Amino acid sequence: MVKNTGWISFKCFYDKYGHLVPVEGEQDIPFQIKRVYYIYSVDDGVRRGFHSHNKLEQALICIHGSVKILVKNPYESENILLDDPTKALYIGPMVWREMYDFSSDAVLLVLASGHYDVGDYVRDYSKYEKAALNYFKRGENEGNEHTVCNF
Amino acid sequence: MVKNTGWISFKCFYDKYGHLVPVEGEQDIPFQIKRVYYIYSVDDGVRRGFHSHNKLEQALICIHGSVKILVKNPYESENILLDDPTKALYIGPMVWREMYDFSSDAVLLVLASGHYDVGDYVRDYSKYEKAALNYFKRGENEGNEHTVCNF
Repeated sequence: MVKNTGWISFKCFYDKYGHLVPVEGEQDIPFQIKRVYYIYSVDDGVRRGFHSHNKLEQALICIHGSVKILVKNPYESENILLDDPTKALYIGPMVWREMYDFSSDAVLLVLASGHYDVGDYVRDYSKYEKAALNYFKRGENEGNEHTVCNF
Repeated sequence: MVKNTGWISFKCFYDKYGHLVPVEGEQDIPFQIKRVYYIYSVDDGVRRGFHSHNKLEQALICIHGSVKILVKNPYESENILLDDPTKALYIGPMVWREMYDFSSDAVLLVLASGHYDVGDYVRDYSKYEKAALNYFKRGENEGNEHTVCNF
């Protein structure tokens, strides 16, 4: 997978009363949950995201319907289908992401390691590319506290 | 509303790219988010819940479809329809809850103030009733750090 991304699988408790998926902060995911947000009612053809974060870590879970995520850095990219509520796509720092092909009934839940901080976003791709070329070249993607790679 | 329950309304960012609802822990809800869980694929006719918590605080958000929640204590009860992703039902300590009438496409997201703790559950209604008669009579539902009433 693309560096600083990975899959997380959750337990699912299923019986005649339905399905329940628990996610414990700092246990089932590698960070405290400071913020959650959810995206829904996205029209056909919409593509959104188009940014990276300097520090933020996130876990993306499609808990209804399906959506595709492009994750990339200047060296590699991957298109990922999210359609299973028991799996999260982890996205760490310095990963460009775009979300597309939302099904009409899609609900994308995102768990985030920090509160909203406008200064943590990089929305200009050329600026991102320049920083990421340096970041991944320097090997800062390995072994620091903000990074969990392909676990 | 029933004591130790209340509504919380969230901002919703809506444009041609869809809807996004952010929930900041300790800001948009009155507690840190230690745990999240979601319930889905609940069959018609199922009723679940049937417990209260001694300390746990939760925010229940129906982010797809609809579900009804019964909240009660020995002195009062209320049946509440959840069908709006921008509103949470806050449930504080010592409130008995049952969930029912899940639509086939319902997804109920719950944000919780603590990690899973089996010792915090009260699942026997007669034990709950005895404790709650005392709890609400003593006025412990007002003014302590675990309680946010009807905000």
